[in-house]
Amino acid sequence: MAGNEFGTLFRILTFGESHGPALGCVIDGCPAGVTWDQELLERELARRRPGFDPLSSERREEDRPRILSGVYDGRTLGTPITIVIFNEDARPGDYPAGRPLPRPGHADDLWGLKFGHADPRGGGRASGRETAARVAAGAVARMVLRALSPKTEVTAFAHRIGPFALEPDEAASVPAGDEDYVDSFPARFPSREKGPQVEALLLKAKEEGESWGGAATVRILRPPAGLGQPVFRKLKADLAAAFLGVGGTAGVEIGEGFSAAEARGREFHDPGRKPSPYGGIRGGISTGEEVLVRVAFKPPSTLGESARAGRHDPCIVPRALPVLEAMARLVLADHLLLARSDRV
Amino acid sequence: MAGNEFGTLFRILTFGESHGPALGCVIDGCPAGVTWDQELLERELARRRPGFDPLSSERREEDRPRILSGVYDGRTLGTPITIVIFNEDARPGDYPAGRPLPRPGHADDLWGLKFGHADPRGGGRASGRETAARVAAGAVARMVLRALSPKTEVTAFAHRIGPFALEPDEAASVPAGDEDYVDSFPARFPSREKGPQVEALLLKAKEEGESWGGAATVRILRPPAGLGQPVFRKLKADLAAAFLGVGGTAGVEIGEGFSAAEARGREFHDPGRKPSPYGGIRGGISTGEEVLVRVAFKPPSTLGESARAGRHDPCIVPRALPVLEAMARLVLADHLLLARSDRV
Amino acid sequence: MAGNEFGTLFRILTFGESHGPALGCVIDGCPAGVTWDQELLERELARRRPGFDPLSSERREEDRPRILSGVYDGRTLGTPITIVIFNEDARPGDYPAGRPLPRPGHADDLWGLKFGHADPRGGGRASGRETAARVAAGAVARMVLRALSPKTEVTAFAHRIGPFALEPDEAASVPAGDEDYVDSFPARFPSREKGPQVEALLLKAKEEGESWGGAATVRILRPPAGLGQPVFRKLKADLAAAFLGVGGTAGVEIGEGFSAAEARGREFHDPGRKPSPYGGIRGGISTGEEVLVRVAFKPPSTLGESARAGRHDPCIVPRALPVLEAMARLVLADHLLLARSDRV
Amino acid sequence: MAGNEFGTLFRILTFGESHGPALGCVIDGCPAGVTWDQELLERELARRRPGFDPLSSERREEDRPRILSGVYDGRTLGTPITIVIFNEDARPGDYPAGRPLPRPGHADDLWGLKFGHADPRGGGRASGRETAARVAAGAVARMVLRALSPKTEVTAFAHRIGPFALEPDEAASVPAGDEDYVDSFPARFPSREKGPQVEALLLKAKEEGESWGGAATVRILRPPAGLGQPVFRKLKADLAAAFLGVGGTAGVEIGEGFSAAEARGREFHDPGRKPSPYGGIRGGISTGEEVLVRVAFKPPSTLGESARAGRHDPCIVPRALPVLEAMARLVLADHLLLARSDRV
Repeated sequence: MAGNEFGTLFRILTFGESHGPALGCVIDGCPAGVTWDQELLERELARRRPGFDPLSSERREEDRPRILSGVYDGRTLGTPITIVIFNEDARPGDYPAGRPLPRPGHADDLWGLKFGHADPRGGGRASGRETAARVAAGAVARMVLRALSPKTEVTAFAHRIGPFALEPDEAASVPAGDEDYVDSFPARFPSREKGPQVEALLLKAKEEGESWGGAATVRILRPPAGLGQPVFRKLKADLAAAFLGVGGTAGVEIGEGFSAAEARGREFHDPGRKPSPYGGIRGGISTGEEVLVRVAFKPPSTLGESARAGRHDPCIVPRALPVLEAMARLVLADHLLLARSDRV
Repeated sequence: MAGNEFGTLFRILTFGESHGPALGCVIDGCPAGVTWDQELLERELARRRPGFDPLSSERREEDRPRILSGVYDGRTLGTPITIVIFNEDARPGDYPAGRPLPRPGHADDLWGLKFGHADPRGGGRASGRETAARVAAGAVARMVLRALSPKTEVTAFAHRIGPFALEPDEAASVPAGDEDYVDSFPARFPSREKGPQVEALLLKAKEEGESWGGAATVRILRPPAGLGQPVFRKLKADLAAAFLGVGGTAGVEIGEGFSAAEARGREFHDPGRKPSPYGGIRGGISTGEEVLVRVAFKPPSTLGESARAGRHDPCIVPRALPVLEAMARLVLADHLLLARSDRV
Repeated sequence: MAGNEFGTLFRILTFGESHGPALGCVIDGCPAGVTWDQELLERELARRRPGFDPLSSERREEDRPRILSGVYDGRTLGTPITIVIFNEDARPGDYPAGRPLPRPGHADDLWGLKFGHADPRGGGRASGRETAARVAAGAVARMVLRALSPKTEVTAFAHRIGPFALEPDEAASVPAGDEDYVDSFPARFPSREKGPQVEALLLKAKEEGESWGGAATVRILRPPAGLGQPVFRKLKADLAAAFLGVGGTAGVEIGEGFSAAEARGREFHDPGRKPSPYGGIRGGISTGEEVLVRVAFKPPSTLGESARAGRHDPCIVPRALPVLEAMARLVLADHLLLARSDRV
Repeated sequence: MAGNEFGTLFRILTFGESHGPALGCVIDGCPAGVTWDQELLERELARRRPGFDPLSSERREEDRPRILSGVYDGRTLGTPITIVIFNEDARPGDYPAGRPLPRPGHADDLWGLKFGHADPRGGGRASGRETAARVAAGAVARMVLRALSPKTEVTAFAHRIGPFALEPDEAASVPAGDEDYVDSFPARFPSREKGPQVEALLLKAKEEGESWGGAATVRILRPPAGLGQPVFRKLKADLAAAFLGVGGTAGVEIGEGFSAAEARGREFHDPGRKPSPYGGIRGGISTGEEVLVRVAFKPPSTLGESARAGRHDPCIVPRALPVLEAMARLVLADHLLLARSDRV
């Protein structure tokens, strides 16, 4: 199986099964001299962690990251950085021996078909728990961005959960790079009015073994201009691959997205238009303006009795947000290094 | 500049500026023994070529592909296959010397910013003409698919052009792998009723220097099951990168796409549901069912006098369809080879 | 820093500093279904381990490998395999704080120059201890070879240590794939007559803080025919990169090596010649005959008081042999998977 | 077939069969803004070209390189640079239809075994003619080096041809970067005394259908310090792969090479020793001192009547020298770009 690596120069490789001994990542290509921020790493992991609010699954992992290599005396060495999270609350006993029943919407059957041998315990490597490794790597990318593009901020929030959609002015008023603001809302849906309704929806769903789809907005504020490698490695293509590489996703939009398909050119390209319809990317290259991406998620497929009993979320979006932010930062860090070779 | 390569085992590298001497591609990693079909290659290029119907731009290139390497005695050698298309109707004189005015929505300014030195003639490498090389490579991927998965077909058509949307039953009735059917409709919008209205819309736009957005449906029929490399190289992630690497794109949806974001789990995952909402991909792996992807395009940014005078399309979608089909086939060919290492 | 990865389809990434918390490797691309042999892994590591005979350095690490991912129920899952070895006998106190004195022949100064920030403790990542991770990965490659090419054996032995050279008939009589035979000789120099003299030479060197160069023979017996990817990834090129990527190396020869430079064609290419002068590789592709490679090593650069006091070997070759075998197996496993795409 | 690409950031892909329509290369990753020197490109190709002196084969190709992309207004664009050389003196008629007889030492049989379908005409892609594409790419690397490390020079010469070896002082007196000096000697063996004897040896061999092995010295003068990516991408490992990826090679030595295997540490590492025994590379990283590499070549395998009749060289080394220089420059250009990411 290929495909556990992401990035070209700032590369990550993630590993680990949901109920195996550990999961983690190795980052190859991180430049030397980046100031290490262990507290940031732990905070990012805490934001993704389940079991700390009533809306999410109840698996309680401390997710303490151990740094096995690549950092010395408070700075990166330029050597591979290995971060391991040991599984402490793995409950393989929840998953009885023998071939488990296929679960609708899950891919257990396909892994079996493809590999002939799969770990049946809680999804194995296909589990959402794999994303903890991405979040850890994304925290390192954030440290790199601080050094190379300190004004750049990445912020993600829910703009749709089932029947509820955020109003444009609510979306516009989310402050840049302030996770605490987003986290202060139930389900990270930053609306004073609808937040509690979303919360009620999800609590009810949890009780009933129901689930809901949703969508996230990812904003990159003050990105460096000139990122993106034409032709195939356009910034939008890399962001799309990054986001659709997250489980449960069903679509991605850059800037105006699908509404652009209905648009008339003269209106769409009106130079005075605010905000710009290009989502901060033209010709695949960042303009330096805010990058705006939206990502759609399917409703979780664990339903009914299993959803009530097990450790499952009624909507993926709230916990996926730190993962999307991580993926965005990984793309940015990689493209910042790639751009160093644009010219002699 | 990196990023002119696509794929891992079945890899392509495209080259060429719009008004330079030639453009083309080299395919590295094509297995030996594939039956060569020159007529297929020329037919695919003809489908992308501009200037052959009143709805498209008027640049008239014969796009005759020359095979410089990799094919002998009617079959591929396993060595790099080089396909070159010489630019015959290049009109650098259309583009006066000196720094051209920035065109709204184009990326000329960003290429200048990024590289410090750019070809001002007709977009240089950023021109849509670059996609001819992708279509040529995609034709080779099609030859590979015939050998490795002969029942698989890829079909793309317009399902939205500006205000017009295809009805679900019209979309469902497009026959698999029959390009002639799609091509028999104006603007490749396969609707008996709305086709002429779309044609009128685009002819009027062409006259007025206006343009329209649109969206394409890409269907992969009878794909092999088990394609896609978790975690980062999910089939949906690679398809998204493939499609958003095409110029003018603004979004991509897999299966239900953004409508999944509003869905309730019990309905969405209802096992009896037809068609399946997963778009033929679960857990990033193809199920063997039809793969369904939608791609949104912005309205072209060349407007007004330049659009009337120059060689420009009022909507990108019709001519982008062969490019999307090519990209889909490139992804499939690569993943078919990658899957050969799934097991001992 | 790039360059911690090796291989294309069967890829490894190694990590870890000599006196950091741990070192190890992640293997991405190992096919599913390979029978896991933990005992083999531990035995290979034991063969590389220092401190277990009077000729080698005295650092005593148990080198117990922990498998963090990728193996379940006795077989590989097709997911990344992570092997970690925690450093238990790290003695950072041996390396006083502050910038250490440059050691002749070491690269501490160059790492400092290059990265601006380096781990001064025992060579950091540049330490020979890094090779334990390669040996662990090579053991997994050996498990893959058992499944895909069970008759193939890799055997390495010392054929020169300082003034002593093995006789051709002694070299020829080393049995294929029998590590115990090689290990039964002092310094893994398989000569009944000269073995004790070599041992005496090295013991004396150890006492005096002296060191010696040497050379290793690597034989691949019954390799699959047809391995090697022309043009740049010839089997000999990949083997050369594999071996010269090991610290302390100064040269590599395939088959006749430098003696071929003096040869006359009619004699060299005489079809009846035994053994064949091509070293089992023609045109960069394995013929199926025994592959023969020789690797030269410089004398270790730790000399005098430091060599007597610290944990250092008077000659690298004996302990480098398991590393060379590992690198050879990694190349073979990768090329076996690459060859799966040679034809449709 | 993989393996037609070389390099990571400054990447080349070569293509073409000996008697197909053309051969050439595409360079992906060349930074924008490099001053183009067409005359240099043609001069480098001329140095590799056969048929211009009595010692080499008689195929007369003008090898006129056509630039199809990537260069505009005298400078590189940062886009892929495509260089094509059309085969003008291809004589497929020399190679009668049907399966050709296997030639000793050639790999025709192995290509057949591996790919099942091979071009029998003159070695197809396995022909030495493929190296013209490398030389073209190497000329571009030289233009990049002029911009990024203008004092660096690469010089290669024959130091052994069959029974003749260059004296150390003759080798030492070859001036840096002066191809004309080397080219002024028969067989590029820079010895006033032995040059004519080497010439006589090779003329006689040509007459008799005999051939000779040989060895080349490659010197990199004033290289940048700090090139090389530990652990697997050591500068010596990449150089070894570059050189052993050239056809006919049998070994490579860095610095002292195999004589280091006999050396005693105190003498070898004596800090006062001149020249330094490390060949300009320690720990896999360039020190900034001269890099010294030696490469061994087998005698050509075309012998007897075929050698007299066809277009074949009695010794590969003289014509391989521009190829080795090209490969060295490709490695340097790639590592210069890689080093840009060593630190934040």
